[in-house]
Amino acid sequence: MDISVPGFQAAGISSGVKDNKKSDLGLLFSLQPASVVAVFTTNKVQAAPVVVTRDKVANKSAQAIIVNSGNANACTGVQGLQDAGLMCQLTAHELGVDEKSVLVSSTGIIGVPLPMEKIKSSIPRLVTSLSPAGFNDFAEAIMTTDTFPKVVLKKCMVDEKEVTLCGVVKGSGMIMPCMATLLSFIVTDADIDSVTLEEVFRDAVNNSLNRITIDGETSTNDMAMMMANGKAGNSILAKHSSDFKVFREALNSLLSELGSLVLKDAEGSTKIISIHVKEAMNDEEARKIAYRIANSNLVKTAFFGEDVNWGRIMSAIGQADISSLPDKIDILFDDVIIVENSTSTGNELQAMDIVKKTEFQVTINLHSGSGFADVGTTDLTTEYVKINASYPT
Amino acid sequence: MDISVPGFQAAGISSGVKDNKKSDLGLLFSLQPASVVAVFTTNKVQAAPVVVTRDKVANKSAQAIIVNSGNANACTGVQGLQDAGLMCQLTAHELGVDEKSVLVSSTGIIGVPLPMEKIKSSIPRLVTSLSPAGFNDFAEAIMTTDTFPKVVLKKCMVDEKEVTLCGVVKGSGMIMPCMATLLSFIVTDADIDSVTLEEVFRDAVNNSLNRITIDGETSTNDMAMMMANGKAGNSILAKHSSDFKVFREALNSLLSELGSLVLKDAEGSTKIISIHVKEAMNDEEARKIAYRIANSNLVKTAFFGEDVNWGRIMSAIGQADISSLPDKIDILFDDVIIVENSTSTGNELQAMDIVKKTEFQVTINLHSGSGFADVGTTDLTTEYVKINASYPT
Repeated sequence: MDISVPGFQAAGISSGVKDNKKSDLGLLFSLQPASVVAVFTTNKVQAAPVVVTRDKVANKSAQAIIVNSGNANACTGVQGLQDAGLMCQLTAHELGVDEKSVLVSSTGIIGVPLPMEKIKSSIPRLVTSLSPAGFNDFAEAIMTTDTFPKVVLKKCMVDEKEVTLCGVVKGSGMIMPCMATLLSFIVTDADIDSVTLEEVFRDAVNNSLNRITIDGETSTNDMAMMMANGKAGNSILAKHSSDFKVFREALNSLLSELGSLVLKDAEGSTKIISIHVKEAMNDEEARKIAYRIANSNLVKTAFFGEDVNWGRIMSAIGQADISSLPDKIDILFDDVIIVENSTSTGNELQAMDIVKKTEFQVTINLHSGSGFADVGTTDLTTEYVKINASYPT
Repeated sequence: MDISVPGFQAAGISSGVKDNKKSDLGLLFSLQPASVVAVFTTNKVQAAPVVVTRDKVANKSAQAIIVNSGNANACTGVQGLQDAGLMCQLTAHELGVDEKSVLVSSTGIIGVPLPMEKIKSSIPRLVTSLSPAGFNDFAEAIMTTDTFPKVVLKKCMVDEKEVTLCGVVKGSGMIMPCMATLLSFIVTDADIDSVTLEEVFRDAVNNSLNRITIDGETSTNDMAMMMANGKAGNSILAKHSSDFKVFREALNSLLSELGSLVLKDAEGSTKIISIHVKEAMNDEEARKIAYRIANSNLVKTAFFGEDVNWGRIMSAIGQADISSLPDKIDILFDDVIIVENSTSTGNELQAMDIVKKTEFQVTINLHSGSGFADVGTTDLTTEYVKINASYPT
């Protein structure tokens, strides 16, 4: 599939930040100023590029983002802030645009100063590598422990104009986005004002990328950013219009697919499990229960062991920070009911084939209200431990 | 060492609850009525024996506790409550004591009804096996994935009388006690009234057994129980007396040692790490930070990989539910300062030998107040995942 978005260019090169000569420096560029919105990690320890980019996004307009992998530029003090600022400056200079319109993002190891000489000397080459077809190169440049680049393209018709959306994401560990997510960059040629863009983007992130977890860890560098440059020529998207709904639908679906790609590449995992909690007291309690299950090491090792261990799920529910435990809990693996009214149905054998699948769904019905939540998770494997015991500081 | 406590007998036998003929039924018996206190799991899903024993402990007097391993009698509905009650009844009958004075506890798999025929037919043999020297047999009978029985004996002089305390604990996974702990049974021949006993016991549990975590999982069956039968003949322990302080000191030290034994036998672990948080805003925030670090899969896999990965510790601190992040954070591995004022000191190499040790301490100084917390944890290993992926439902 041809991956390109009118008015955007992208690039990815190796600058030497990573020792292994893998691609580690990426650039996304809009030929004209674009509306921009971004959400950031809720980790109170925030990396320098998060601080710098949050500040710049307040202008609601941007043209480029430079991203390095291999080094998070986190816990690097004043030097880290200067380095993040310099990356923007140098890129702006090479692109011939205002410094304010260039954002920055980093991912990788924490606490080590960026090797700025390598980055500085590579920026001119990065800019000359820009191409409308560069999205895959960009996706590769922002990978850390990811095993494949993650790009999703969507097209929809808005105001009789074809609108394109392209999303790139990285992440396979340290994943429990919280009002933000891993690193995720979305561009579109739609014409949409920044207020509307912000609203539709935040909603979409909350219902997709913010509903996955691999290990309950929210990183210091999480960021999801979207630029819209208006190149499609549609009349500006008005909220509540049917065109807006089409666009929102395309964006939601794009972000959900990006989230699925992250889960698919989860460090060491062998399966993806959707945790559906329904009929909870309210959405907030549903969310707490879903996350308590989705982050339980015991539940996740049972998934790895392909064991219909509903007792661990019950125990996880009992640990959720909710007002009171419902009397009647049902647990289903896909469509097989394992627990009814909080006790075993004796159907474990029927569910044996389900837990052997690479994707399945666990549904918890609490019969207490209309609260609902949906969280995607993975199994916890020996391979996850090996990967994270050997990832270098 | 001769393990016995005046006026107490103990036993442990195999009843067939476990398929592998291992010991699975234990009994602790006081020859005379004893003051009793117990704390229970904060998991909202509570096993039948927890419900039954909590009710009985309200009488503040007891003489025996029967404990089975291999089956938790949790999520077993009305049948489970009846079974737990019946275990007490039959044991009381064989012992010739009031049914009210017999407590019950269970540990093992969740959601499967107890094999009551096996237990019923074994209770007479269990009672005839009682012996003053039976504590090790009892400790063995309550084990699940534990690899060794855990018994600690302490003696102290109170009112010029020798007082003995003996504690037995089981647990090696699903460990994050919360106002209660795993299964833990302490007996003493001290004479102490039930109100004072309750106070000193709760404090001791909170500062010892409640300060360890293996996997952040609080079980449905956690219980810590203590009986004091007064057999030592000391004049009753008065609060604030010097004798009381001696007794409290002995109890605290006993419970700390029991906690260390649990960490030492943590499923698959290779090391024990003490997380000391000091100069936090207050004790509550110190506790939250210590637990966020102690339960982080990324921190724990780094410990397994013997990696001085302070970035993951900083990231964990940033995820703790605290009011605001302090400006100046120091991190020490034993006495080597790795992070000062939130940035690297470059001393990682000096800490390489520390992280290779089987026990070490990580200190976090937040320079914000006088809050303090101390939590013991372990590393997260491939072996932990293997054990929990293969533990049968």
